[in-house]
Amino acid sequence: MTPTILVTNDDGITSSGIRTLIDEVRHLGKVTVVAPDSPQSAKGHAITINQPLRLVKVGIFEDWGIDAYACSGTPVDCVKLAVDKVFHKKPDLCVSGINHGSNAAINVIYSGTVSAAMEAAIERIPSIAFSLLNYSANANMEPCRKYVREIVNSVLQNGDGRNTLLNVNIPALPPEQIKGIKVCHQANAFWNEEFYEREDPVGRKYYWLTGEFVNDKMDHEGDQTALEEAYVSVVPLQFDLTAYKEMAYVRDILKK
Amino acid sequence: MTPTILVTNDDGITSSGIRTLIDEVRHLGKVTVVAPDSPQSAKGHAITINQPLRLVKVGIFEDWGIDAYACSGTPVDCVKLAVDKVFHKKPDLCVSGINHGSNAAINVIYSGTVSAAMEAAIERIPSIAFSLLNYSANANMEPCRKYVREIVNSVLQNGDGRNTLLNVNIPALPPEQIKGIKVCHQANAFWNEEFYEREDPVGRKYYWLTGEFVNDKMDHEGDQTALEEAYVSVVPLQFDLTAYKEMAYVRDILKK
Repeated sequence: MTPTILVTNDDGITSSGIRTLIDEVRHLGKVTVVAPDSPQSAKGHAITINQPLRLVKVGIFEDWGIDAYACSGTPVDCVKLAVDKVFHKKPDLCVSGINHGSNAAINVIYSGTVSAAMEAAIERIPSIAFSLLNYSANANMEPCRKYVREIVNSVLQNGDGRNTLLNVNIPALPPEQIKGIKVCHQANAFWNEEFYEREDPVGRKYYWLTGEFVNDKMDHEGDQTALEEAYVSVVPLQFDLTAYKEMAYVRDILKK
Repeated sequence: MTPTILVTNDDGITSSGIRTLIDEVRHLGKVTVVAPDSPQSAKGHAITINQPLRLVKVGIFEDWGIDAYACSGTPVDCVKLAVDKVFHKKPDLCVSGINHGSNAAINVIYSGTVSAAMEAAIERIPSIAFSLLNYSANANMEPCRKYVREIVNSVLQNGDGRNTLLNVNIPALPPEQIKGIKVCHQANAFWNEEFYEREDPVGRKYYWLTGEFVNDKMDHEGDQTALEEAYVSVVPLQFDLTAYKEMAYVRDILKK
Protein backbone atom coordinates (compact mmCIF):
# COMPACT_ATOMS: atom_id res chain seq x y z
CA MET A 1 0.00 0.00 0.00
CA THR A 2 1.34 3.42 -0.90
CA PRO A 3 1.55 5.49 2.31
CA THR A 4 -0.32 8.82 2.45
CA ILE A 5 1.88 11.73 3.51
CA LEU A 6 0.83 15.19 4.73
CA VAL A 7 3.45 17.88 4.15
CA THR A 8 3.27 21.18 6.00
CA ASN A 9 5.58 23.87 7.36
CA ASP A 10 5.62 27.29 9.01
CA ASP A 11 7.52 29.38 6.46
CA GLY A 12 4.58 29.22 4.06
CA ILE A 13 3.62 27.11 1.07
CA THR A 14 5.88 29.00 -1.38
CA SER A 15 9.11 28.58 0.60
CA SER A 16 12.02 26.65 -0.87
CA GLY A 17 12.25 24.44 2.22
CA ILE A 18 8.82 22.88 1.75
CA ARG A 19 9.50 22.51 -1.98
CA THR A 20 12.63 20.46 -1.29
CA LEU A 21 10.80 18.36 1.30
CA ILE A 22 7.94 17.62 -1.10
CA ASP A 23 10.36 16.80 -3.90
CA GLU A 24 12.09 14.26 -1.71
CA VAL A 25 9.07 12.55 -0.12
CA ARG A 26 6.97 12.43 -3.30
CA HIS A 27 8.93 9.33 -4.25
CA LEU A 28 8.02 7.65 -0.95
CA GLY A 29 4.22 7.93 -0.91
CA LYS A 30 1.11 9.80 -2.01
CA VAL A 31 1.78 13.38 -0.93
CA THR A 32 -0.77 16.11 -0.17
CA VAL A 33 0.34 19.57 0.95
CA VAL A 34 -1.59 21.74 3.41
CA ALA A 35 0.57 24.67 4.47
CA PRO A 36 0.18 28.29 5.58
CA ASP A 37 -0.53 30.90 2.92
CA SER A 38 1.91 33.29 4.68
CA PRO A 39 4.92 32.99 6.99
CA GLN A 40 3.96 31.61 10.42
CA SER A 41 7.33 31.32 12.12
CA ALA A 42 7.42 31.37 15.93
CA LYS A 43 3.70 30.73 16.17
CA GLY A 44 4.30 27.83 18.57
CA HIS A 45 1.24 25.69 19.10
CA ALA A 46 -1.18 28.55 18.40
CA ILE A 47 -4.56 27.69 16.91
CA THR A 48 -7.13 30.01 15.39
CA ILE A 49 -10.36 30.20 17.37
CA ASN A 50 -11.58 33.78 16.89
CA GLN A 51 -11.37 33.85 13.10
CA PRO A 52 -12.72 31.52 10.44
CA LEU A 53 -10.11 29.63 8.43
CA ARG A 54 -9.71 29.57 4.66
CA LEU A 55 -8.35 26.66 2.66
CA VAL A 56 -7.60 27.36 -1.02
CA LYS A 57 -6.40 24.77 -3.54
CA VAL A 58 -3.29 26.00 -5.36
CA GLY A 59 -1.57 24.58 -8.42
CA ILE A 60 2.07 25.18 -7.53
CA PHE A 61 2.96 21.47 -7.32
CA GLU A 62 0.72 20.19 -10.14
CA ASP A 63 3.71 19.38 -12.36
CA TRP A 64 4.48 16.72 -9.78
CA GLY A 65 0.83 15.59 -9.66
CA ILE A 66 0.51 16.77 -6.05
CA ASP A 67 -2.57 18.42 -4.55
CA ALA A 68 -1.74 21.47 -2.45
CA TYR A 69 -3.85 23.72 -0.23
CA ALA A 70 -2.92 27.12 1.18
CA CYS A 71 -4.43 27.71 4.63
CA SER A 72 -4.98 31.09 6.29
CA GLY A 73 -4.18 29.70 9.74
CA THR A 74 -1.22 28.56 11.80
CA PRO A 75 0.81 25.38 11.17
CA VAL A 76 -1.27 23.55 13.79
CA ASP A 77 -4.48 24.70 12.08
CA CYS A 78 -3.09 23.25 8.84
CA VAL A 79 -2.69 19.80 10.39
CA LYS A 80 -6.15 19.84 11.99
CA LEU A 81 -7.83 21.02 8.78
CA ALA A 82 -5.87 18.56 6.64
CA VAL A 83 -7.02 15.57 8.70
CA ASP A 84 -10.68 16.65 8.88
CA LYS A 85 -11.29 18.30 5.49
CA VAL A 86 -8.61 17.12 3.05
CA PHE A 87 -7.60 13.56 3.95
CA HIS A 88 -10.90 12.85 5.79
CA LYS A 89 -8.84 10.42 7.89
CA LYS A 90 -5.39 10.26 9.43
CA PRO A 91 -2.54 10.19 6.91
CA ASP A 92 0.19 7.59 7.46
CA LEU A 93 2.85 10.24 8.04
CA CYS A 94 3.17 13.99 8.57
CA VAL A 95 6.39 15.81 7.69
CA SER A 96 6.91 19.48 8.51
CA GLY A 97 9.57 21.82 7.11
CA ILE A 98 12.20 22.06 5.93
CA ASN A 99 12.38 25.04 8.25
CA HIS A 100 14.68 27.89 7.33
CA GLY A 101 16.57 28.10 10.63
CA SER A 102 17.35 26.03 13.72
CA ASN A 103 14.70 24.32 15.81
CA ALA A 104 17.17 22.79 18.22
CA ALA A 105 17.07 23.09 22.02
CA ILE A 106 14.38 25.38 23.47
CA ASN A 107 13.35 26.52 19.97
CA VAL A 108 10.99 23.52 19.88
CA ILE A 109 8.69 25.51 22.16
CA TYR A 110 8.39 28.50 19.82
CA SER A 111 8.56 26.70 16.50
CA GLY A 112 5.56 26.44 14.22
CA THR A 113 7.37 23.70 12.26
CA VAL A 114 7.78 21.51 15.34
CA SER A 115 4.29 22.34 16.63
CA ALA A 116 2.72 21.13 13.38
CA ALA A 117 4.53 17.79 13.78
CA MET A 118 3.54 17.71 17.45
CA GLU A 119 -0.11 18.25 16.55
CA ALA A 120 0.14 15.25 14.23
CA ALA A 121 1.69 13.25 17.10
CA ILE A 122 -1.20 14.26 19.39
CA GLU A 123 -3.50 12.87 16.70
CA ARG A 124 -1.43 9.66 16.74
CA ILE A 125 0.09 10.28 13.28
CA PRO A 126 3.81 9.44 12.99
CA SER A 127 5.53 12.75 12.29
CA ILE A 128 8.87 14.41 11.70
CA ALA A 129 9.95 18.06 11.78
CA PHE A 130 12.94 19.01 9.61
CA SER A 131 14.99 22.20 9.99
CA LEU A 132 18.17 23.47 8.34
CA LEU A 133 20.47 25.74 10.35
CA ASN A 134 20.25 28.57 7.82
CA TYR A 135 17.67 31.32 8.23
CA SER A 136 18.00 32.63 4.67
CA ALA A 137 14.97 32.35 2.40
CA ASN A 138 17.46 31.28 -0.29
CA ALA A 139 19.26 28.68 1.83
CA ASN A 140 20.71 25.75 -0.09
CA MET A 141 18.46 22.85 0.95
CA GLU A 142 20.25 20.19 -1.11
CA PRO A 143 22.33 18.73 1.77
CA CYS A 144 19.05 17.94 3.57
CA ARG A 145 17.79 15.52 0.92
CA LYS A 146 19.80 12.49 1.94
CA TYR A 147 18.76 12.77 5.60
CA VAL A 148 15.10 13.44 4.78
CA ARG A 149 15.04 10.28 2.68
CA GLU A 150 16.82 8.13 5.25
CA ILE A 151 14.74 9.25 8.25
CA VAL A 152 11.38 9.25 6.45
CA ASN A 153 12.07 5.74 5.16
CA SER A 154 12.89 4.50 8.67
CA VAL A 155 9.72 6.03 10.13
CA LEU A 156 7.52 4.72 7.30
CA GLN A 157 8.87 1.24 8.00
CA ASN A 158 8.88 1.36 11.81
CA GLY A 159 6.82 4.27 13.13
CA ASP A 160 8.35 7.03 15.24
CA GLY A 161 7.83 5.55 18.69
CA ARG A 162 4.87 5.89 21.02
CA ASN A 163 3.10 9.27 21.05
CA THR A 164 6.21 11.04 19.87
CA LEU A 165 7.54 12.99 16.93
CA LEU A 166 11.08 13.28 15.67
CA ASN A 167 12.73 16.69 15.68
CA VAL A 168 15.49 16.72 13.06
CA ASN A 169 17.99 19.56 12.67
CA ILE A 170 20.57 19.62 9.89
CA PRO A 171 23.78 21.65 9.99
CA ALA A 172 24.25 24.23 7.21
CA LEU A 173 27.40 22.57 5.91
CA PRO A 174 28.55 21.06 2.64
CA PRO A 175 27.37 17.41 2.52
CA GLU A 176 30.85 15.98 2.85
CA GLN A 177 31.41 17.80 6.14
CA ILE A 178 28.29 16.35 7.82
CA LYS A 179 29.36 13.45 10.03
CA GLY A 180 26.06 11.57 10.15
CA ILE A 181 23.01 11.31 12.40
CA LYS A 182 23.04 11.49 16.20
CA VAL A 183 20.02 10.75 18.44
CA CYS A 184 20.07 13.35 21.23
CA HIS A 185 18.02 15.04 23.92
CA GLN A 186 16.71 18.60 23.71
CA ALA A 187 19.75 20.65 24.70
CA ASN A 188 19.91 22.85 27.74
CA ALA A 189 20.47 25.93 25.57
CA PHE A 190 18.49 29.16 25.78
CA TRP A 191 18.00 32.62 24.42
CA ASN A 192 19.47 35.53 26.32
CA GLU A 193 16.94 38.03 25.17
CA GLU A 194 16.52 41.72 25.06
CA PHE A 195 14.42 44.14 23.09
CA TYR A 196 15.51 46.95 20.82
CA GLU A 197 13.67 50.08 21.93
CA ARG A 198 12.81 52.59 19.20
CA GLU A 199 10.42 55.46 18.54
CA ASP A 200 7.90 55.71 15.74
CA PRO A 201 7.40 58.92 13.70
CA VAL A 202 5.02 60.34 16.34
CA GLY A 203 7.33 59.58 19.25
CA ARG A 204 5.70 56.46 20.66
CA LYS A 205 8.01 53.67 21.78
CA TYR A 206 8.03 50.27 20.18
CA TYR A 207 10.07 47.12 20.77
CA TRP A 208 11.68 44.42 18.63
CA LEU A 209 12.65 41.10 20.12
CA THR A 210 16.29 40.18 19.70
CA GLY A 211 18.62 37.85 21.54
CA GLU A 212 21.69 35.70 21.72
CA PHE A 213 21.58 31.91 21.87
CA VAL A 214 23.64 30.37 24.66
CA ASN A 215 24.45 26.65 24.88
CA ASP A 216 25.42 24.84 28.08
CA LYS A 217 28.88 23.61 27.13
CA MET A 218 28.60 20.73 29.61
CA ASP A 219 25.52 19.34 27.87
CA HIS A 220 27.46 16.95 25.61
CA GLU A 221 24.47 14.79 24.66
CA GLY A 222 22.20 17.68 23.68
CA ASP A 223 21.17 18.42 20.12
CA GLN A 224 22.88 21.81 20.11
CA THR A 225 26.31 20.26 20.76
CA ALA A 226 25.71 17.56 18.14
CA LEU A 227 24.93 20.24 15.56
CA GLU A 228 28.01 22.25 16.53
CA GLU A 229 30.01 19.04 15.99
CA ALA A 230 28.56 18.71 12.44
CA TYR A 231 26.01 15.98 13.14
CA VAL A 232 22.37 15.87 12.06
CA SER A 233 20.47 15.81 15.39
CA VAL A 234 17.34 13.70 15.94
CA VAL A 235 15.38 14.25 19.17
CA PRO A 236 12.21 12.28 19.97
CA LEU A 237 9.73 14.74 21.54
CA GLN A 238 6.56 14.14 23.55
CA PHE A 239 3.50 16.20 24.41
CA ASP A 240 3.08 14.98 27.99
CA LEU A 241 4.72 17.96 29.72
CA THR A 242 4.32 16.58 33.27
CA ALA A 243 7.49 17.02 35.34
CA TYR A 244 7.09 13.58 36.97
CA LYS A 245 10.31 13.96 38.96
CA GLU A 246 8.90 17.04 40.68
CA MET A 247 5.56 15.58 41.75
CA ALA A 248 6.82 14.43 45.16
CA TYR A 249 8.36 17.85 45.80
CA VAL A 250 5.13 19.64 44.89
CA ARG A 251 3.08 17.28 47.11
CA ASP A 252 5.52 18.08 49.89
CA ILE A 253 5.34 21.87 49.63
CA LEU A 254 1.56 21.85 49.23
CA LYS A 255 1.29 19.32 52.10
CA LYS A 256 -0.96 17.04 49.97
CA MET B 1 12.03 41.38 51.62
CA THR B 2 8.74 41.91 49.81
CA PRO B 3 8.67 39.56 46.79
CA THR B 4 8.14 41.07 43.33
CA ILE B 5 5.31 39.44 41.38
CA LEU B 6 4.55 39.64 37.66
CA VAL B 7 0.90 39.04 36.81
CA THR B 8 -0.14 38.21 33.25
CA ASN B 9 -2.81 36.24 31.41
CA ASP B 10 -4.15 35.46 27.95
CA ASP B 11 -7.72 36.74 28.16
CA GLY B 12 -6.48 40.33 28.21
CA ILE B 13 -5.75 42.94 30.86
CA THR B 14 -9.42 43.91 31.35
CA SER B 15 -10.70 40.38 32.06
CA SER B 16 -12.26 39.58 35.43
CA GLY B 17 -9.93 36.60 35.91
CA ILE B 18 -6.76 38.70 36.01
CA ARG B 19 -8.51 41.23 38.25
CA THR B 20 -9.30 38.53 40.82
CA LEU B 21 -5.76 37.16 40.60
CA ILE B 22 -4.23 40.60 41.15
CA ASP B 23 -6.60 41.33 44.03
CA GLU B 24 -5.51 38.15 45.75
CA VAL B 25 -1.73 38.34 45.20
CA ARG B 26 -1.42 42.08 45.90
CA HIS B 27 -1.41 41.20 49.60
CA LEU B 28 1.51 38.81 49.10
CA GLY B 29 4.09 41.00 47.34
CA LYS B 30 4.79 43.98 45.12
CA VAL B 31 2.69 43.32 42.03
CA THR B 32 3.22 44.63 38.49
CA VAL B 33 0.89 43.68 35.65
CA VAL B 34 2.00 43.17 32.05
CA ALA B 35 -0.82 41.57 30.08
CA PRO B 36 -2.19 41.50 26.53
CA ASP B 37 -4.24 44.47 25.35
CA SER B 38 -6.67 42.07 23.62
CA PRO B 39 -7.75 38.41 24.00
CA GLN B 40 -4.90 36.00 23.19
CA SER B 41 -6.47 32.64 23.98
CA ALA B 42 -5.06 29.55 22.27
CA LYS B 43 -1.91 31.39 21.21
CA GLY B 44 0.26 28.65 22.69
CA HIS B 45 3.91 29.64 22.95
CA ALA B 46 3.70 32.06 20.02
CA ILE B 47 6.03 35.06 20.04
CA THR B 48 5.94 38.14 17.84
CA ILE B 49 8.92 38.45 15.51
CA ASN B 50 7.54 40.11 12.38
CA GLN B 51 5.83 43.05 14.12
CA PRO B 52 7.11 45.56 16.64
CA LEU B 53 5.54 45.35 20.09
CA ARG B 54 3.80 48.13 21.99
CA LEU B 55 3.71 48.49 25.76
CA VAL B 56 1.32 51.10 27.15
CA LYS B 57 0.96 52.01 30.84
CA VAL B 58 -2.71 51.88 31.89
CA GLY B 59 -4.33 53.09 35.10
CA ILE B 60 -6.92 50.40 35.65
CA PHE B 61 -5.35 49.10 38.89
CA GLU B 62 -4.12 52.42 40.30
CA ASP B 63 -6.68 52.35 43.13
CA TRP B 64 -4.68 49.40 44.40
CA GLY B 65 -1.36 51.22 43.80
CA ILE B 66 -0.38 48.72 41.11
CA ASP B 67 1.47 49.56 37.89
CA ALA B 68 -0.05 47.92 34.84
CA TYR B 69 1.03 47.71 31.21
CA ALA B 70 -1.03 46.61 28.21
CA CYS B 71 1.07 44.81 25.59
CA SER B 72 0.17 44.37 21.93
CA GLY B 73 1.76 40.90 21.80
CA THR B 74 1.12 37.37 22.97
CA PRO B 75 1.23 36.18 26.58
CA VAL B 76 4.82 34.98 26.04
CA ASP B 77 5.78 38.38 24.63
CA CYS B 78 4.33 39.94 27.80
CA VAL B 79 6.65 37.90 30.02
CA LYS B 80 9.73 38.61 27.89
CA LEU B 81 8.99 42.35 27.74
CA ALA B 82 8.16 42.51 31.45
CA VAL B 83 11.52 41.05 32.45
CA ASP B 84 13.59 43.18 30.06
CA LYS B 85 11.74 46.52 30.01
CA VAL B 86 9.53 46.73 33.12
CA PHE B 87 11.22 44.83 35.97
CA HIS B 88 14.71 45.15 34.40
CA LYS B 89 15.47 41.88 36.22
CA LYS B 90 13.69 38.63 37.02
CA PRO B 91 10.70 39.00 39.35
CA ASP B 92 10.47 36.57 42.27
CA LEU B 93 7.28 35.03 40.94
CA CYS B 94 5.09 35.02 37.82
CA VAL B 95 1.39 34.17 38.03
CA SER B 96 -0.76 33.82 34.93
CA GLY B 97 -4.57 33.80 34.74
CA ILE B 98 -7.06 33.26 36.12
CA ASN B 99 -7.99 31.79 32.76
CA HIS B 100 -11.65 31.68 31.79
CA GLY B 101 -11.81 27.99 30.90
CA SER B 102 -9.95 24.72 31.46
CA ASN B 103 -6.25 24.30 30.86
CA ALA B 104 -6.17 20.69 31.97
CA ALA B 105 -4.78 17.75 29.97
CA ILE B 106 -3.59 18.52 26.41
CA ASN B 107 -4.90 22.10 26.68
CA VAL B 108 -1.52 23.04 28.19
CA ILE B 109 -0.13 22.88 24.65
CA TYR B 110 -2.57 25.41 23.19
CA SER B 111 -2.96 27.68 26.20
CA GLY B 112 -1.56 31.19 26.26
CA THR B 113 -2.05 31.25 30.04
CA VAL B 114 0.13 28.18 30.57
CA SER B 115 2.67 29.30 27.94
CA ALA B 116 3.20 32.61 29.76
CA ALA B 117 3.99 30.71 32.95
CA MET B 118 6.18 28.31 30.98
CA GLU B 119 8.14 31.23 29.51
CA ALA B 120 8.77 32.44 33.06
CA ALA B 121 9.96 28.92 33.98
CA ILE B 122 12.34 28.91 30.99
CA GLU B 123 13.71 32.16 32.40
CA ARG B 124 14.09 30.41 35.79
CA ILE B 125 11.30 32.40 37.44
CA PRO B 126 8.99 30.36 39.71
CA SER B 127 5.60 30.48 38.07
CA ILE B 128 2.01 29.30 38.33
CA ALA B 129 -0.83 29.22 35.80
CA PHE B 130 -4.38 29.39 37.20
CA SER B 131 -7.53 28.43 35.28
CA LEU B 132 -11.19 28.14 36.27
CA LEU B 133 -13.35 25.58 34.46
CA ASN B 134 -15.82 28.19 33.25
CA TYR B 135 -15.41 29.79 29.82
CA SER B 136 -17.80 32.67 30.51
CA ALA B 137 -16.36 36.19 30.56
CA ASN B 138 -18.58 36.75 33.60
CA ALA B 139 -17.53 33.58 35.44
CA ASN B 140 -17.65 33.81 39.24
CA MET B 141 -13.95 33.79 40.19
CA GLU B 142 -14.52 33.96 43.97
CA PRO B 143 -14.04 30.22 44.64
CA CYS B 144 -10.51 30.54 43.19
CA ARG B 145 -9.26 32.98 45.81
CA LYS B 146 -8.56 30.50 48.59
CA TYR B 147 -6.52 28.23 46.29
CA VAL B 148 -4.62 31.09 44.68
CA ARG B 149 -3.59 32.29 48.13
CA GLU B 150 -2.60 28.85 49.40
CA ILE B 151 -0.58 27.83 46.34
CA VAL B 152 1.11 31.21 45.82
CA ASN B 153 2.13 31.27 49.48
CA SER B 154 3.64 27.78 49.21
CA VAL B 155 5.62 28.69 46.08
CA LEU B 156 6.83 32.00 47.52
CA GLN B 157 8.14 30.10 50.53
CA ASN B 158 9.57 27.05 48.73
CA GLY B 159 9.89 27.65 44.98
CA ASP B 160 8.04 25.54 42.43
CA GLY B 161 10.64 22.85 41.86
CA ARG B 162 13.49 22.75 39.37
CA ASN B 163 12.79 24.30 35.94
CA THR B 164 9.09 23.74 36.29
CA LEU B 165 5.85 25.65 36.57
CA LEU B 166 2.65 24.65 38.31
CA ASN B 167 -0.50 24.28 36.24
CA VAL B 168 -3.51 24.79 38.49
CA ASN B 169 -7.10 24.13 37.38
CA ILE B 170 -10.07 24.89 39.61
CA PRO B 171 -13.50 23.28 39.19
CA ALA B 172 -16.41 25.66 38.57
CA LEU B 173 -18.25 24.61 41.73
CA PRO B 174 -19.49 26.32 44.86
CA PRO B 175 -16.58 26.49 47.36
CA GLU B 176 -18.13 23.98 49.75
CA GLN B 177 -18.26 21.32 47.02
CA ILE B 178 -14.54 21.55 46.20
CA LYS B 179 -12.77 18.68 47.95
CA GLY B 180 -9.26 20.17 48.11
CA ILE B 181 -6.04 20.08 46.09
CA LYS B 182 -4.67 17.03 44.25
CA VAL B 183 -1.19 16.86 42.63
CA CYS B 184 -1.61 15.05 39.30
CA HIS B 185 -0.05 14.35 35.94
CA GLN B 186 -1.26 15.86 32.65
CA ALA B 187 -4.22 13.67 31.77
CA ASN B 188 -4.38 11.49 28.72
CA ALA B 189 -7.43 13.44 27.44
CA PHE B 190 -7.80 14.94 23.98
CA TRP B 191 -9.98 16.87 21.61
CA ASN B 192 -11.98 15.00 19.01
CA GLU B 193 -12.06 17.79 16.53
CA GLU B 194 -13.91 18.75 13.44
CA PHE B 195 -14.59 21.93 11.58
CA TYR B 196 -17.88 23.59 10.77
CA GLU B 197 -17.90 24.28 7.04
CA ARG B 198 -19.83 27.36 5.89
CA GLU B 199 -20.03 29.74 2.94
CA ASP B 200 -19.49 33.46 3.01
CA PRO B 201 -21.80 35.91 1.12
CA VAL B 202 -19.85 35.40 -2.13
CA GLY B 203 -19.94 31.59 -1.89
CA ARG B 204 -16.40 30.92 -0.67
CA LYS B 205 -16.01 28.24 1.99
CA TYR B 206 -14.69 28.94 5.44
CA TYR B 207 -14.11 26.76 8.50
CA TRP B 208 -14.56 27.12 12.26
CA LEU B 209 -12.72 24.81 14.64
CA THR B 210 -14.98 22.90 17.00
CA GLY B 211 -14.59 19.69 18.95
CA GLU B 212 -15.46 17.43 21.82
CA PHE B 213 -13.14 16.75 24.75
CA VAL B 214 -12.62 13.06 25.54
CA ASN B 215 -10.98 11.80 28.75
CA ASP B 216 -9.35 8.39 29.15
CA LYS B 217 -11.48 6.95 31.94
CA MET B 218 -8.65 4.64 33.02
CA ASP B 219 -6.32 7.59 33.68
CA HIS B 220 -7.23 7.87 37.37
CA GLU B 221 -4.23 10.00 38.36
CA GLY B 222 -4.66 12.58 35.59
CA ASP B 223 -5.77 16.15 36.19
CA GLN B 224 -8.94 15.73 34.16
CA THR B 225 -10.24 12.98 36.46
CA ALA B 226 -9.30 14.96 39.57
CA LEU B 227 -11.31 17.92 38.26
CA GLU B 228 -14.29 15.70 37.44
CA GLU B 229 -14.08 14.45 41.05
CA ALA B 230 -14.25 18.07 42.34
CA TYR B 231 -10.57 18.53 43.21
CA VAL B 232 -8.34 21.47 42.35
CA SER B 233 -5.63 19.90 40.14
CA VAL B 234 -1.96 20.91 40.34
CA VAL B 235 0.40 19.54 37.67
CA PRO B 236 4.12 20.40 37.62
CA LEU B 237 5.10 20.99 33.98
CA GLN B 238 8.50 21.09 32.28
CA PHE B 239 9.85 22.51 29.05
CA ASP B 240 12.26 19.69 28.24
CA LEU B 241 10.07 17.85 25.73
CA THR B 242 12.54 15.02 25.07
CA ALA B 243 10.85 11.61 25.05
CA TYR B 244 13.76 9.97 26.91
CA LYS B 245 12.03 6.57 26.99
CA GLU B 246 11.94 6.53 23.19
CA MET B 247 15.61 7.34 22.53
CA ALA B 248 16.70 3.70 22.43
CA TYR B 249 13.88 2.87 20.02
CA VAL B 250 14.81 5.75 17.71
CA ARG B 251 18.50 4.77 17.79
CA ASP B 252 17.41 1.28 16.87
CA ILE B 253 15.24 2.21 13.88
CA LEU B 254 17.83 4.70 12.57
CA LYS B 255 20.60 2.15 13.22
CA LYS B 256 22.67 4.76 15.12
